Amino acid sequence: MTMPKRDTYTPDSLLAVAVEVFNERGYDGTSMEDLSRAAGISKSSIYHHVRGKEELLNRAVGRALDGLFGILDQPEAGNGRAVQRLEYVIRRTAVVLMDELPYVTLLLRVRGNTTTERWAMERRREFDQQVAKLLKAAVAEGDLRVDVEVRLATRLLFGMINSIVEWYRPAVKGALDRDQVADAVVRLAFDGLRA
Amino acid sequence: MTMPKRDTYTPDSLLAVAVEVFNERGYDGTSMEDLSRAAGISKSSIYHHVRGKEELLNRAVGRALDGLFGILDQPEAGNGRAVQRLEYVIRRTAVVLMDELPYVTLLLRVRGNTTTERWAMERRREFDQQVAKLLKAAVAEGDLRVDVEVRLATRLLFGMINSIVEWYRPAVKGALDRDQVADAVVRLAFDGLRA
Repeated sequence: MTMPKRDTYTPDSLLAVAVEVFNERGYDGTSMEDLSRAAGISKSSIYHHVRGKEELLNRAVGRALDGLFGILDQPEAGNGRAVQRLEYVIRRTAVVLMDELPYVTLLLRVRGNTTTERWAMERRREFDQQVAKLLKAAVAEGDLRVDVEVRLATRLLFGMINSIVEWYRPAVKGALDRDQVADAVVRLAFDGLRA
Repeated sequence: MTMPKRDTYTPDSLLAVAVEVFNERGYDGTSMEDLSRAAGISKSSIYHHVRGKEELLNRAVGRALDGLFGILDQPEAGNGRAVQRLEYVIRRTAVVLMDELPYVTLLLRVRGNTTTERWAMERRREFDQQVAKLLKAAVAEGDLRVDVEVRLATRLLFGMINSIVEWYRPAVKGALDRDQVADAVVRLAFDGLRA
């Protein structure tokens, strides 16, 4: 049994602990007891910070979604040829995913049993649809190939980008650099493996 | 309470039920009780077919792995320029994934708490390494770009292919056709989105 420690958590540092536990045990499989144990403070101390675990989920996926939707608000995502806007959005999406790794990992794993989970899935779908629209516009402008259906291309594209959460670990020595990964994603997405 | 039904299962049909439950609840989260309930037969009837749930896991991931390694044994994967062999392997990997959807889904989700899980992860890694070797050979032959590291390219490539399990549902009306998906994977992998 570990001794409870003094509660010196900030909203952000408590959230970081919670997200780690959610990603490890799954959101459904995590109890307030688990969170209390991982944080090393009592359940009532946690309730001093948040109303419950759903609020922690809400903040965590909110942080991931803010990062992603923030990309679409940048001028580079709104002006110019669609293909250039798409390139910007794809690169930035990969970067946000790596910068906010545990939060985006959680977002990609939620499965929709609570209001917050359904909301997160809905927002995620909205983001994907915005990217699909950009892809469609770039096809219409003649810059992207017409022989792969837009919906299918969007899915495969996100499949590639989202898979980064499975193996990217920034703290590992000799790990690939964030910008190196983002460059590779953009190159493969637009021009593929061929020389 | 459901009435137990007469045990008319074959090894394959019982395996199909088990894999469905494993994919839904996770392998760790599935008890023999859960399997008995899903199959509608008693636990002792299940033990008549298999020694336990690990044997079912072994058969299920074995089926996925046989499908994948079977690709590498084909003449098209062994003869000719590396880039052509790679194209064959990528296309067939996508097809096996769709044909053996629940089995490959399970394979991609196992996380290594039992001997069988660790073995499955090890075999999956071997398959990825075989593909990485092919990619390296195609780079050496001058057919693939040199500005994306082989290990990273392999990861992103499998990220794209493996993501198919997240959304491909063959029985859904209006769903994308298997060959259409495999074509798209090959086009995007080699030549990207650009027109």
